[in-house]
Amino acid sequence: MKVLVINCGSSSLKYQLLDMQTEKVLAKGYCQKVGIEGSFSDHEANGVKTHSHRQLKDHKQALKLMSKFLTDKKIGVIFNINEIDAVGHRVVHGGENFSHSVIIDGKVKEAIRECIPLAPLHNPPNLMGIEACERIMPNTPMVAVFDTAFHQSMDKKSYLYAIPYEYYEKYGIRRYGFHGTSHKYVSNKVAEILDTKVDEIKVISCHIGNGASICAINKGKVQDTSMGLTPLEGLVMGTRCGDIDPAIIKFLSDKEGYNIHKIDDILNKNSGLLGVSGISNDIRDIEQAESEGNQRAKLALEMFAYRVAKYIGAYAAAMNGVDVVLFTAGVGENGIKVREEVCAYLGYLGIYLDKEANDSRGKLKEITTSDSKVKVFVVPTDEELMIARETKGLIG
Amino acid sequence: MKVLVINCGSSSLKYQLLDMQTEKVLAKGYCQKVGIEGSFSDHEANGVKTHSHRQLKDHKQALKLMSKFLTDKKIGVIFNINEIDAVGHRVVHGGENFSHSVIIDGKVKEAIRECIPLAPLHNPPNLMGIEACERIMPNTPMVAVFDTAFHQSMDKKSYLYAIPYEYYEKYGIRRYGFHGTSHKYVSNKVAEILDTKVDEIKVISCHIGNGASICAINKGKVQDTSMGLTPLEGLVMGTRCGDIDPAIIKFLSDKEGYNIHKIDDILNKNSGLLGVSGISNDIRDIEQAESEGNQRAKLALEMFAYRVAKYIGAYAAAMNGVDVVLFTAGVGENGIKVREEVCAYLGYLGIYLDKEANDSRGKLKEITTSDSKVKVFVVPTDEELMIARETKGLIG
Repeated sequence: MKVLVINCGSSSLKYQLLDMQTEKVLAKGYCQKVGIEGSFSDHEANGVKTHSHRQLKDHKQALKLMSKFLTDKKIGVIFNINEIDAVGHRVVHGGENFSHSVIIDGKVKEAIRECIPLAPLHNPPNLMGIEACERIMPNTPMVAVFDTAFHQSMDKKSYLYAIPYEYYEKYGIRRYGFHGTSHKYVSNKVAEILDTKVDEIKVISCHIGNGASICAINKGKVQDTSMGLTPLEGLVMGTRCGDIDPAIIKFLSDKEGYNIHKIDDILNKNSGLLGVSGISNDIRDIEQAESEGNQRAKLALEMFAYRVAKYIGAYAAAMNGVDVVLFTAGVGENGIKVREEVCAYLGYLGIYLDKEANDSRGKLKEITTSDSKVKVFVVPTDEELMIARETKGLIG
Repeated sequence: MKVLVINCGSSSLKYQLLDMQTEKVLAKGYCQKVGIEGSFSDHEANGVKTHSHRQLKDHKQALKLMSKFLTDKKIGVIFNINEIDAVGHRVVHGGENFSHSVIIDGKVKEAIRECIPLAPLHNPPNLMGIEACERIMPNTPMVAVFDTAFHQSMDKKSYLYAIPYEYYEKYGIRRYGFHGTSHKYVSNKVAEILDTKVDEIKVISCHIGNGASICAINKGKVQDTSMGLTPLEGLVMGTRCGDIDPAIIKFLSDKEGYNIHKIDDILNKNSGLLGVSGISNDIRDIEQAESEGNQRAKLALEMFAYRVAKYIGAYAAAMNGVDVVLFTAGVGENGIKVREEVCAYLGYLGIYLDKEANDSRGKLKEITTSDSKVKVFVVPTDEELMIARETKGLIG
């Protein structure tokens, strides 16, 4: 069975074609600046990379280019696009409608459309991708895999905010959480490694990339997660502030005369590691600056690790204990120092880091000593594989 | 030595006169609706309560009434107001200027005035109280005791928000924390009870009243605290939301067409327990409703306890461990069920509640079993005594 995984951004298309018997990636690619001048695309199959500067006026053209690459006589991996058995689409927001992946039909598309107010930047391009695919492959079944779905297992006490209840009823203001596909994948993966079932362990999953979220997974069910109504809440991120006193918004508005949209922009785009360090949103640049003695870089890194450690502590309380902590995504998989700094707070939980084991990037690895009471792992995430598996599960 | 403790609100005056040799309260009183029609006052000394309906046009008149009560031939406890050796004033916000209590002079008053933007509702009446006292007792030394001072021992990593650093430099936007006098008092008290020094233990202090904050006190130094720039952040409170996704403000503004001030008002006055339950800001009313089967009351209580537990977990991580957790203030001292629900999350820390010991209101008490690895106490707070002690420490 061959599954194509599609992830459409407003001006981008990422895809991967997987053979689900072996779970191997047959080909993958990334089209950028779709619908904008200067489009370019990178495709890779069988170790051969192909670059294209063809202008792509919309997602349909991008998908056609993908189709050309996939079926190319020289570099192709299939003869005909109809060899693809199913398509799995990443959809950011499923609201409260979707607690699982679903086969896409008219009703599902309508429900995704209804969630646009909750994810105005993401759901519209996700829908565009679905509709463009439907035109290119009208007879191929499609599945929507939602970033929010895994988190729908949360209880009300975890997902509601302490604001007037009517705003939940009227506008769906609640914690949704994101990175659900990743949190689900890595928590299942770690259970597999431990030769147990995910519904027998308490896992705290730290997905730390430029965006970052933590998720408490209590016996397979999400107990809590740090991103909320939007991906702004929670950890210190590359450019997002995460948790702040909500009164700061009014205070800053009074001081600077900014309106609420301008401040929302500052909190999303100019804050986080970038805002504190004044250097970069990329933790590698900040670590470099710190090593050269920059004090604000040092502070930004301290704040970053401190916030992660506090969330791990909070979620250990939320679940009344924790068996496994795991790190995933760019910084989680590669940030040796970040992991060390976070774990330095957690001795009280019986977490003992193995510094040698931790000196590793991008590999599945246990990084605590054998006598550590709580195990810590690095688990490379694979959202595409998870989407492909969900798709296979519904179609296959 | 006799110390008068003064706490002025915008239309209120609370006072207590203490004999510092015995730390006994000689007299206390509360004038309300000062400067508003319908003023009334309650005074108590030697077990005798006196009620007055005299109209009080300003804080000076209120202080004069207090003076009359204190020196009254029948119910008085002193002959002359000049017998008062010193006055301790509660001041809410000392900004970054004050990490300790100080003797009040012109410069101190100026610095308190400079902090008005940070506490526009509190610092002006605090200053009014100081100036009215100076007129009534021109030769008596006065001390300012700040709610924020204790928290000034926090590190930058704890008190900064991950927003552009310039806003800290330009406007002092940072975590200040409140209830500092209470957190300091109860953490010292618990060290005394344990026959140790506060700088040898890690304490998590839960001050839970209608307003509520948690404080991690790491060997006598504040490591972190849940209220931030303002008292809006942190726990679910009577009418305040505590932590939310900051993006909710823009979302709600877009939906309801409210401006930022209106939303700030909703988050401060219509949220928290009241907003979720739709019943009351008073936990006793909500517990009553829950016992009658009200589901939203049940939810509000669950959210309340869950948030407290998560903060305790977070602060255990922040300090890499905890020796003592304590509950204080109205709900903390009297909320048997709240304490039980919070502690139910904390078995992983080795916290074992003694249900019988916990069945107690308003009394200093250890409420964990003897084999509990972390001790939990109820410690009645006494901010007035702490203010009097600080005053004596500077004047005596």
